[in-house]
Amino acid sequence: MNEEIKAVAKAEKIDEAKLRKLFSAGRVVIPKNVKRGKMHPRGIGECLRIKINANVGTSKDYVDINEEIEKAKTAERLGSDAVMDLSTGGDIDAIRRKILSSVKIPVGTVPIYQAVIENGGAADLSSDDFFNVIRKHAKDGVDFVTVHAGVNLNSLERLKKSKRILNVVSRGGCFTIAWMLKNGKENPYYEEYDYLLEIAKEYNLTLSLGDGMRPGCIADASDRAKFMEFITLGELVSRAREKKVQAIVEGPGHVPINEVGLSVQAMKHLTEYAPLYLLGPLVTDVAPGYDHITGAIGGAVAGAYGADFLCIVTPSEHLALPTVEDIKEGVIVARIAAHAADIVRLGEDARKWDREMAIARKNLDWEKQFSLALDAEKARKIKKSRESPTDACSMCSDLCAIKMVREALE
Amino acid sequence: MNEEIKAVAKAEKIDEAKLRKLFSAGRVVIPKNVKRGKMHPRGIGECLRIKINANVGTSKDYVDINEEIEKAKTAERLGSDAVMDLSTGGDIDAIRRKILSSVKIPVGTVPIYQAVIENGGAADLSSDDFFNVIRKHAKDGVDFVTVHAGVNLNSLERLKKSKRILNVVSRGGCFTIAWMLKNGKENPYYEEYDYLLEIAKEYNLTLSLGDGMRPGCIADASDRAKFMEFITLGELVSRAREKKVQAIVEGPGHVPINEVGLSVQAMKHLTEYAPLYLLGPLVTDVAPGYDHITGAIGGAVAGAYGADFLCIVTPSEHLALPTVEDIKEGVIVARIAAHAADIVRLGEDARKWDREMAIARKNLDWEKQFSLALDAEKARKIKKSRESPTDACSMCSDLCAIKMVREALE
Repeated sequence: MNEEIKAVAKAEKIDEAKLRKLFSAGRVVIPKNVKRGKMHPRGIGECLRIKINANVGTSKDYVDINEEIEKAKTAERLGSDAVMDLSTGGDIDAIRRKILSSVKIPVGTVPIYQAVIENGGAADLSSDDFFNVIRKHAKDGVDFVTVHAGVNLNSLERLKKSKRILNVVSRGGCFTIAWMLKNGKENPYYEEYDYLLEIAKEYNLTLSLGDGMRPGCIADASDRAKFMEFITLGELVSRAREKKVQAIVEGPGHVPINEVGLSVQAMKHLTEYAPLYLLGPLVTDVAPGYDHITGAIGGAVAGAYGADFLCIVTPSEHLALPTVEDIKEGVIVARIAAHAADIVRLGEDARKWDREMAIARKNLDWEKQFSLALDAEKARKIKKSRESPTDACSMCSDLCAIKMVREALE
Repeated sequence: MNEEIKAVAKAEKIDEAKLRKLFSAGRVVIPKNVKRGKMHPRGIGECLRIKINANVGTSKDYVDINEEIEKAKTAERLGSDAVMDLSTGGDIDAIRRKILSSVKIPVGTVPIYQAVIENGGAADLSSDDFFNVIRKHAKDGVDFVTVHAGVNLNSLERLKKSKRILNVVSRGGCFTIAWMLKNGKENPYYEEYDYLLEIAKEYNLTLSLGDGMRPGCIADASDRAKFMEFITLGELVSRAREKKVQAIVEGPGHVPINEVGLSVQAMKHLTEYAPLYLLGPLVTDVAPGYDHITGAIGGAVAGAYGADFLCIVTPSEHLALPTVEDIKEGVIVARIAAHAADIVRLGEDARKWDREMAIARKNLDWEKQFSLALDAEKARKIKKSRESPTDACSMCSDLCAIKMVREALE
């Protein structure tokens, strides 16, 4: 990983020796499969810019490979640092391989989806089926995989004793539970975790330890089932580190804004500061159609508390498979959340961008403002749609405070 | 205000005696001008649901009364608790009166805008001009007015010693500074504050003490000029309470996410828990076109720390006068922020809504989900645009975790 560490150190303007130390400690990961072709590695973890991931992929109801490729490329173009292919419909192998060859950023998958779909359901999987699909994805060059190794008989026991409304909303967690209940056995990913680590080691496959117990609504947040899983994930992180396997952990879910810090800090402590990958957190359940925003609120707060990797949420969350437009909106909004948190996390290194925008605003330099805008196209379109005959904008026209105060004070 | 207190207690399901105590202490205000016709009063402050305000009004460049009325009505229909008419173009008196007769929620204004526009600029105003325009608005029935009484020679001195990039971005603050510098005198609203209180008392006009020193960019946040103004506003709140005048204070602005709590707590302490009215706060400067979202992030965090009243921010902030669509988007997003904070602020009283949504999700009861959604129309549209042949949605189809886990666990 020497070359990748150098590349990340350069991209992040961080001292190489310091990065090497964080990488060795497992506090930073750089997902890159040994089989993956040329790509731009990304570092995820402490002292680095918060990264974002876009989920793409077919569903059973909508299978259009070209659209999924377009989603992946759009996400990359707009600044997503990774994509995950979560396809569950059509030729899953073909889609995954096409995505791997279409983008230059890390690619992740959730292999158990394919195992379940191609073997007629979760309950009938053999223990081998759990691992063969991981090896297949690894051979294709997938850089990181979500494995729900923390969904075990212990966390299931805690779940049964809970009074959750939505129990389990993680599909992978759900498959695993169905399998455990049907077969009366421990989750193979947990039971044979050493074997999983061997495969991961062989391909330098980064493990993203899935949060099968993530809360699916505000009422279910921060309960004992979730904390039990945090503890298990922490133990699994330690075992991965012993075997020199890169590992990150995934976090909730739906969480009230005042419990986001609790979740992030607990996960960071209990997992010995493994890089933390979050979906959301969504800070309310009542805004379907706007969950990119409920997620951005939670993501920004989580990032400020130490989350390292944010999964985009799109406006179609809870409602439908996202469109290319939804992916676009999701990526931009996740980048806003990540940058708002980076201002806290990285200080002046991140604030410099805002400072330049502020100076462009002071100078009423609109082209400079557009060039600095996270979405130049949208900013320009809004400005042009209601243009002002003055050098200010049509909100204030010649009553622009920036203009007036410049004249008054300077 | 007996009738209004009863109405608010009923709407908020709060004990009437408790509300009366909060109202007497000035920790809750109920803006309602004695001249205002029949309307639905709103309580703003401690122990109550966070309220939101939508700014509407013409600019010098765009004057279309009907459009502004439509904005005000749209805001009210979508759940805004107040509108402010910030018109600076066309027949300002006519627009204000039309808005007052078009909605049943509290209406606010920033009277100094009209004084400046109709008197050829800020510098040439007489001291009387400052007050006559307030009396005019009060006579029309305006329920609350922003007055930048905290922009005084003391805060100006702090501003001059600061190294702000954007100095002052509040238009009212800017007019006041221009006037003070030109005339070499103290701000009349500060100098003759007792006279202002007399007018306010006469009409039961709520004073919203403006934050003329609010930071206009991340780099300018939380500085000495701002804290100086907090202190002055606190003193002005005390004087208002002595004269039985309702007063709230306005807050920043552009603020990094980790300083939002600081700002809110400082303002609450320094103003003896006056109801706090915030614009944003915007947690980054780099996302023009998405400032409804940068504002929702800051607003949700601020609300969780104790802010009571959030002003909507629209996608056209920093770029153009908003359209009706922008107002719609701004109101929905501000309501999301307010509710995410109410979950913290009000506990189960607010969480009940999320709980009902979670149960509707568990039951895959889509009509119930739409009826509970903050924006039913958008949620329904997304769902229908990519319908699933199953009873789940097209994201997961029959791999829906909610369906599967129900079968496995129950």
